[in-house]
Amino acid sequence: MTIYQATASAPVNIACIKYWGKRDTKLILPTNSSLSVTLNQDHLRSTTTSRADPNFTSDHLWLNGKEEEIKPGGRTATCITEMKRLRKLEVEDQDPSAPPLSTWRVHIASYNNFPTAAGLASSASGFAALVASLAHLYELPVSPSTLSLIARQGSGSACRSLYGGYVAWEMGTKPDGSDSLAIQVAPESHWPDIHALICVVSDDKKGTSSTSGMQRTVETSSLLQHRIAHVVPQRMKDITKAIQERDFDTFARITMTDSNQFHAVALDTEPPIFYMNDVSRAIIAVIVEYNRVSLASGGGYKAAYTYDAGPNAVIYAPAQNMKEIVSLVTYYFPQTTDSFKDVFGLFSGTGAEGSLVEGFNENVAKKFGVGAVKGLIHTNVGDGPRKLGEGEALLGDDGLPSAIPA
Amino acid sequence: MTIYQATASAPVNIACIKYWGKRDTKLILPTNSSLSVTLNQDHLRSTTTSRADPNFTSDHLWLNGKEEEIKPGGRTATCITEMKRLRKLEVEDQDPSAPPLSTWRVHIASYNNFPTAAGLASSASGFAALVASLAHLYELPVSPSTLSLIARQGSGSACRSLYGGYVAWEMGTKPDGSDSLAIQVAPESHWPDIHALICVVSDDKKGTSSTSGMQRTVETSSLLQHRIAHVVPQRMKDITKAIQERDFDTFARITMTDSNQFHAVALDTEPPIFYMNDVSRAIIAVIVEYNRVSLASGGGYKAAYTYDAGPNAVIYAPAQNMKEIVSLVTYYFPQTTDSFKDVFGLFSGTGAEGSLVEGFNENVAKKFGVGAVKGLIHTNVGDGPRKLGEGEALLGDDGLPSAIPA
Repeated sequence: MTIYQATASAPVNIACIKYWGKRDTKLILPTNSSLSVTLNQDHLRSTTTSRADPNFTSDHLWLNGKEEEIKPGGRTATCITEMKRLRKLEVEDQDPSAPPLSTWRVHIASYNNFPTAAGLASSASGFAALVASLAHLYELPVSPSTLSLIARQGSGSACRSLYGGYVAWEMGTKPDGSDSLAIQVAPESHWPDIHALICVVSDDKKGTSSTSGMQRTVETSSLLQHRIAHVVPQRMKDITKAIQERDFDTFARITMTDSNQFHAVALDTEPPIFYMNDVSRAIIAVIVEYNRVSLASGGGYKAAYTYDAGPNAVIYAPAQNMKEIVSLVTYYFPQTTDSFKDVFGLFSGTGAEGSLVEGFNENVAKKFGVGAVKGLIHTNVGDGPRKLGEGEALLGDDGLPSAIPA
Repeated sequence: MTIYQATASAPVNIACIKYWGKRDTKLILPTNSSLSVTLNQDHLRSTTTSRADPNFTSDHLWLNGKEEEIKPGGRTATCITEMKRLRKLEVEDQDPSAPPLSTWRVHIASYNNFPTAAGLASSASGFAALVASLAHLYELPVSPSTLSLIARQGSGSACRSLYGGYVAWEMGTKPDGSDSLAIQVAPESHWPDIHALICVVSDDKKGTSSTSGMQRTVETSSLLQHRIAHVVPQRMKDITKAIQERDFDTFARITMTDSNQFHAVALDTEPPIFYMNDVSRAIIAVIVEYNRVSLASGGGYKAAYTYDAGPNAVIYAPAQNMKEIVSLVTYYFPQTTDSFKDVFGLFSGTGAEGSLVEGFNENVAKKFGVGAVKGLIHTNVGDGPRKLGEGEALLGDDGLPSAIPA
């Protein structure tokens, strides 16, 4: 008996031009276009196995080994339904001999290799991996952009995880959302030099969820409409050009100003939404000073911070600056040997050393204690979803989740 | 021999519609109108004595007993020059027998009764007291609005301290600034019920000065122009009406949203400017929850927070809510017996007790340690500059500063 099963992994992406606000909450159509860098799934990824079987009695989903309800009409159900529809349309309707997988129930097991406590949005990589694994299972002859239309309905930013490299989510204009999809601005090979340092920041309290927060901003912020109509369109053009030209100065400036503006419109919400805390602010001060020192001596920007809907910083920089950046961050936010894994061998595998660069004004931030930044994750720009072999499947022969990978 | 000397005190004001940005940095002409509440100078004030004498060899200024340089062409020099010009124009040119005080040098001693460390802007009350004392010395037959034109050139927001009650600073349109002045929207007697609780918040580092910060916002924020052109004009109309109608719900909403928006455009600046810290954010969360509980049970807004260019909160509320507010703040930010003076006898002169109101979600903020909020100052809406008697003069018979008052 043939087993119909496929496994895929998908990457995390972190936006440089932020998505904040929906014009259609059901279809997840955004109020502005956005653009992100896909991070290397060698380090951070969601892996998903999907299996279709005529004997399954209903659709099931396990996340990190724990079963999650698939709510009728909910986001996961929508993605599965849309993928089955594509299977029928693109495969079964074309080839009557193809097995009728679109009519069979699915079992889906998904696993994130990064802890939920890290505060990294796993919904983007998770929905991208879900859609990618189903696309392989269903042998769909469609582009990542077409798949992104479906991943978008799971979680908006998930659509950008269907491509590697530098990815735009074009907001589109059609009411049915058929032109609101991801396109690749440039593959990772075009500008492989971009690295990222994720600073995992402790927070006292759970922030506002991005889903509810962004709609409160749409409803109450007087500044958001100006951002949508008059700021983002030009920034999308400018950062696309910067990526095409590998112009880090422009890329860095736009990335930082757009992160600031996203948090500004969150603050302009009623009641106000804060995602950054005092540690986040201190990391900004360190990066601002690091760039100031370089610019003052005739150099360019050395690094760019960006913050999503939480206190964690992501610092983008050319690879050659990352050792200095890890040293600077470690100077103000001491790390233990466990909290920074030197995967790129910057410190020859030993612990990261905290130190300042010449001319750096130490007083831009106070020195925090161990744990203020719980950990550092060093990664780089990476590829899009990968098809994995049966050896990496997350479902056992019985169609139930196997042991979680180490 | 006649001694030509006058003493005046002037109040602090805290804006509900924020001033942020100059269209003329020399004349201090703002990019938008603003509106403030004048606080009671029984509690917080600057007191200034000015003396003119033909034997003085140069102008001198002492601030809190310490001599400050009067820089030629600087803000203090401009105010003194303008006041001398008015003396000549309005008095000496009209009455040739009037003593030629406009040609004599002045000695000026000023004293703030609140510590600089409290982080309260003393420039507003200070320049208002300077101008008010000179106006009495020179016996100028001019309105507070005319004096506000001069105080404005010392420190923009000082112009609003020339009136008690509820005060607008009309931005004006003329290049010479002659229509950029303060007007009284309503006297304190119109709505005497408004109290204020100042929460003095500790901060790790010195923030960006408002003078340099606001110009960076003018130069780099994409959102500021929208605020100036499309948001503030309507808010000025709406809050003026709210004050006229003693409509606290509208007053509170506008005050909080405008504080948020000022900090939003500061964040939208390159590099970003942060004035609020984690303690400021927690105070906002407490006030938001306090209002939520009231609104959920069909009541109105109970309190409104506002933040200037620093981490201190000012909470405006009807007098009847202040005991609850002090209790709420004290619950999360414990006070010592010294750090809150119960001047209105809310707690019968004993220490403030921390407690929550019914239905309040305790988890909106964590409980901080003693010192996170260094002190609470309870005050209320108050009157404009006061002429004081010779018994309160800050200059001795020798024309030099006398002992600082207790």
